[in-house]
Amino acid sequence: MEKEEEVRLLGFWASPFTCRVKMALKLKGVPYEYLEEDLMNKSPLLLELNPVHKKVPVLVHNGKPILESNLILEYIDQTWTNNPILPQDPYDKAMARLLAKFVDEQVAPAGFRSLVKAEKGIEVAIEEARELIMFLEKEVTGKDFYGGKTIGFLDMIVGSMIPYCGVRAWEFMGIDMIPEEKFPALNRWIKKLNEGEIVRECVPPREEHIKHLKRNEERVKSAYKRQT
Amino acid sequence: MEKEEEVRLLGFWASPFTCRVKMALKLKGVPYEYLEEDLMNKSPLLLELNPVHKKVPVLVHNGKPILESNLILEYIDQTWTNNPILPQDPYDKAMARLLAKFVDEQVAPAGFRSLVKAEKGIEVAIEEARELIMFLEKEVTGKDFYGGKTIGFLDMIVGSMIPYCGVRAWEFMGIDMIPEEKFPALNRWIKKLNEGEIVRECVPPREEHIKHLKRNEERVKSAYKRQT
Repeated sequence: MEKEEEVRLLGFWASPFTCRVKMALKLKGVPYEYLEEDLMNKSPLLLELNPVHKKVPVLVHNGKPILESNLILEYIDQTWTNNPILPQDPYDKAMARLLAKFVDEQVAPAGFRSLVKAEKGIEVAIEEARELIMFLEKEVTGKDFYGGKTIGFLDMIVGSMIPYCGVRAWEFMGIDMIPEEKFPALNRWIKKLNEGEIVRECVPPREEHIKHLKRNEERVKSAYKRQT
Repeated sequence: MEKEEEVRLLGFWASPFTCRVKMALKLKGVPYEYLEEDLMNKSPLLLELNPVHKKVPVLVHNGKPILESNLILEYIDQTWTNNPILPQDPYDKAMARLLAKFVDEQVAPAGFRSLVKAEKGIEVAIEEARELIMFLEKEVTGKDFYGGKTIGFLDMIVGSMIPYCGVRAWEFMGIDMIPEEKFPALNRWIKKLNEGEIVRECVPPREEHIKHLKRNEERVKSAYKRQT
């Protein structure tokens, strides 16, 4: 750890990817300057730091940009070694990274389809998303957190994506995606997450978030239709 | 490192993802049992170890399966610590992982489109692939290997994907994708790679590979059309 740390985070308040980086910095107790990006009018700094994808979050540590939220979490964990984020055992680490990939590459798109892809039948899309989320239910069964006794890598990945992003969007659309009787472990885990300071301070404020989802509903749906 | 190591690799001889794992095990000097998979008739062992994606490679270390080639490389590097694969510095490590993601998620699909997506105009697809490969040219300029003086993580990722997979397929289709005058550093790097024992022993044999590409040409093209 260097003497004169300069840590800046470029993010967007409602982004789950920004949220998980905030959680990691909070867990480590790293002070940082937060720069909110207007995604409709991106700053010259963001375009300079991430010229290819132009995406948030970007962590800037002593002038060097680090891109991609999960790689930022790995970087934070290796740079500030107190309160470990990733498991230490190589096999547990590989499993955590595999599940993180599964959340971002499979659960998140399936969850998104369950919100917008009514053509195929919304009920089918909901069941497909639930089948994937069931893996996350099993993984947290019998544990306080995915990371064991304390919040870790997967708690930040799943946490930013499911309770503080997906669940709010599903509720807004009137979908009870993870009912307690079907997903008891996941619901218990969410309650435990909500009690922690890390989460309370780092997740998008609920009321603002719901308003944001409402404002963006039509825009998101039409963007999705153009893609498919 | 445990006393009684049991290391098995389930792979497919022409797969770039299998190839990079072979390179990593060779670099570390880890003895292992190699189990070739028939992808048209997958073994019960593969289906048991990777029930969701049913993909190779799978590394099995003392009975525990590790999935996804790049996560396997990280696992190998952390388990056998001689001859490091990944850079040690957290920032260099984040950059190597970012470029690995870029190779697999952007360069490889663009390279594939340049082989099969003639509808849009093959010349356009070739230029799009070249623009992405130019990032890899710049990254290896002035260096012996991506890893510096010796072969490392990105040499395995880019190596398995470009010279011993993409280039052979492009040649087969009569495309000179990375001409020396446009990509001098990349061509110099490939020559250097070819001199090394790690590569010579781990890449798919050239003649067999070309025959394999020929046998699969029509099947691949029709699979691609179904996807898009």
